[in-house]
Order: sequence, then structure tokens, then C-alpha cells
Amino acid sequence: MIGVFDSGIGGLTVVKELERQLPGEQILYFGDTARYPYGNKGPETIVQYALQDADFLAQKGADCIIIACNTASAVASKEISDAFTDLPVFEVITPAVRAAITATTNGRIGVIGTRATINSDIYAETINATRNDITVVGQACPLLVPLAEEGWLDTPTTITVTKQYLQPLIDQHIDTLILGCTHYPLLRNLIQNIMGDTVTLIDPAELVVGTLKEFIKKTPGLQRAMTRDEYGTGYYFSDLPSHLNNLIKVWLGHGVTVRRHIIA
Amino acid sequence: MIGVFDSGIGGLTVVKELERQLPGEQILYFGDTARYPYGNKGPETIVQYALQDADFLAQKGADCIIIACNTASAVASKEISDAFTDLPVFEVITPAVRAAITATTNGRIGVIGTRATINSDIYAETINATRNDITVVGQACPLLVPLAEEGWLDTPTTITVTKQYLQPLIDQHIDTLILGCTHYPLLRNLIQNIMGDTVTLIDPAELVVGTLKEFIKKTPGLQRAMTRDEYGTGYYFSDLPSHLNNLIKVWLGHGVTVRRHIIA
Repeated sequence: MIGVFDSGIGGLTVVKELERQLPGEQILYFGDTARYPYGNKGPETIVQYALQDADFLAQKGADCIIIACNTASAVASKEISDAFTDLPVFEVITPAVRAAITATTNGRIGVIGTRATINSDIYAETINATRNDITVVGQACPLLVPLAEEGWLDTPTTITVTKQYLQPLIDQHIDTLILGCTHYPLLRNLIQNIMGDTVTLIDPAELVVGTLKEFIKKTPGLQRAMTRDEYGTGYYFSDLPSHLNNLIKVWLGHGVTVRRHIIA
Repeated sequence: MIGVFDSGIGGLTVVKELERQLPGEQILYFGDTARYPYGNKGPETIVQYALQDADFLAQKGADCIIIACNTASAVASKEISDAFTDLPVFEVITPAVRAAITATTNGRIGVIGTRATINSDIYAETINATRNDITVVGQACPLLVPLAEEGWLDTPTTITVTKQYLQPLIDQHIDTLILGCTHYPLLRNLIQNIMGDTVTLIDPAELVVGTLKEFIKKTPGLQRAMTRDEYGTGYYFSDLPSHLNNLIKVWLGHGVTVRRHIIA
């Protein structure tokens, strides 16, 4: 059973990739909608919340944990790996960095994300640990999350705001752009149009599932464990706001049964 | 000592009014920035959080509690009054409703607020409990909060989005508009320009402090209690993100010493 957590519904982009790349796997999802969003919060709070989220997945019997949230991956993945040594933990940064390094030809990579992700500087640090000749340009785009959540995916307002955020990256001549927040794949077409066809977009959700798939192939014991039972599978959220079911349909393309898990 | 809580920094509009109308009073502020915002969340979660926030103020020795947050006032004020029977509790809905009823001449009042506030229908219910001949038009404006938080107070984007939200209220010929969220006073000039001079804007922050002032005058014992000591005064937040101090200066017009109170 694959455990996935996110600060809210954004991690469903990872679930969608799981359904596409690993159909048939049991999925246990937790979205911390009661404390959503994480992206504007400080690192101490994000670490505290992410540890609680992962603990819920572990308690429910997850065989591995995917940190779908870029913010939590950026700020809390070390703490989660240290706390759950018996579970494989997958974060979304490393696979995206690997793909971006492969993709760039001019050595100029852009990263868009929440304020917390960009402030953490994790993408630049991870990229430069492998290739210190690459220039990494980060841009926080805090308004893209609420715009995407409102379903304003191609309104004039969203186009204007997205252009405004991306202009510094265009000015810096990046040729590769990491979509460093679960919400941005919803805006993928818009972002590609603004950046132009010559810029390669990197979607961490797609890539983290690819990494998991490889890992499962190489670890037959884990593969069995993952399909061993259905205990605990399902979709849990810490808050069930009135518009949650509609949002899930937009993100996942289909509805799911939602249950509430209260974090005290 | 006057206790004020809010889901985040928005309640500082109430503090600003306290400083103006009741200078010299001790203030204890709690902003639940770790779980901010409340406005898109479900009523159960909002009630749980609001009770915890009020409890913190009570534990710290507040002599009364102002629920500065419209969302918490709309959804949780009864629960808070029931739980803290020994403390006067002031919410922002009732004074705003009273002022709006006085202000309207055509019997058409608009309310803008978060999704949770508008869904609660509390403004319409409260207005119609007194005057059932008044038509109340509610409009959720979820994007105005993140726009105001970003400091985008008069950007073309904010103007466009605000116009879009307010157009249905203009179409409904309201003559009075309740600014039903702590963030909207920051956009007051813009909203007045869009609505036109003939529409009266009602600011709950201003009015709740007026109500408290009247209450203090009529309750001399409370007044003494309120100035009795400085224990616990100050500004507490459940999360201290990197941009908090800048935001406080924008909202309050001056800085304050911030402390962290973790809600487990």
C-alpha cells in the first residue's frame, strides 16, 4: 500500500500519476486540509505537521511514504526519513532535480514554488551538489495556488499573474523549468505557452512515481507487501470543506470516497 | 486586558481600532498563523480551532475576548460564548449588522466574505431576524485574502478580481456593503471606488471596538479588571513565517514584538 500525503488536495497530482504508471496499487492518501496551505508557513511548523501526516500513514499500514507536497519535501524530508527508518520515503525534489539536470542544455534551470520552498533553496542546493556550473533561478509564486484552487486555470487574471511571475525567468534565459508545487501541473499548458516551446517543463509528480516504480521493480519483497491487503486504503482529509468533492473531481478526473481524520 | 484572536494577521485591523478608540488598553493578541486561513475550511474544523484560540486567551488572563475573525464569528461565536461563560465575548457580526440596518435606505444590503462566512448565511439570518423586509446579497471573495496578504492592494490584477466579485452586488443595487472579512479594510478605497460613493461601507472591526467601548463604560468593574495588570499582554502567533514582521507593519502601521505559541 502506497501512502501519499500532502498539505491538501495538491498531492492528488501524484495519485493521478500512480493511477497512470502503477495501476492497481492500493493507495492511502492523507491531505491536511485543516491546516492547509503549508507554503507560506515557517519551517518549524511545516516539519511538525509533516511528521504528523507521515505518522498517520505509517499507523494505517503504509508500506512506503510519498511526500507529495513540494513544501514538505523541501523542508521536512530529512526529518521524515530519520523518523521512519523502517519505511522507504520518497520526496519530490530529487527525481525532479535529476531530470532537470539531464534536460538543460544551456545550464540555466528555473524553479517556481511556494515561498517556503523557494526560501529553503533546496532545489538550487541539490542541483549544485551535482553540477555546480548550473545557474538556478528561483521564483516564489504564492498566488498561483489560490488561483488554481479556485479553478481559475485560464482566466485573464491567472494569465496576467502567471506572466508576471514568469517574466524574471524568461529574462534569465532558463531552458528548463521545475514546476515545484503540486498545483502547477494544472497550469501546465498556460506555463508552457508563456515560457515558449523551447523550455522543458519538469513535473515532480510524474517523476517521483517513476522513481517509485523503479524501486518496486528492484525490491520484490516490497512489491508483495504493497499489494498484500487493503487495510487502511482510501482518501483521508483533516477537514472536509463544502467544495472538497468538486475539487477532487477537477484534480483526479473522478470522485473518491472521502473520510475525515482529525489531527488533535 | 483585551484578548483578540484571529485566524492570522487580519485581526490586527481590530487592534488598530483598539489603539485608535481605546488607547492605553492592554492587548493580548493571538493569530493562528500555523493553521491560517480558516475561510475555506469546514465548520467543524473552524469551531475546534476557534475554541482552542479563545482558550489560549482565557488561560493568559484576558478579561474579555474579541473574535476578530469574521469566519470564526460566523461559525463559532455561539460555541465560544457557551464555553467561556465567565468572559464577555464580542463577535464582529452583530455590530456590523446593526450599523448596516441603520445605514440602508433602499433595504438592499450586500455582504462580502470568505466562502465559510457566506456559506454560513449568518449575516442574512441576523439581519432578517430584525428586519425581514431587507434583501441580503452575499458574495464569497476567496481570492481577495491572498491578494491582500501579498500586499497587492492596488495592482491591476486586484482591481480586475475585485470588480469581478463586486459586479453581482452592483447589479443587485445594494446601497450598503458589509466588509465581512478582516482583510477587506486594506482594500477599502478600491472597493469604494468600484461600488461608487452612494454605497455605504460597513467595517466590522471599527464597530466591534465601538461596542466594546460602550460595554466598558457601562461596566466599571470590568474596566478596572482590564487595566489591572500586564500579565500575558503581547502578540502571539502559532507560526512565525519569514514575512510576518513585514505584514504586521503593513497592517498595524508599526512593528510589535512577536512570540510563538504552539498549538499541539
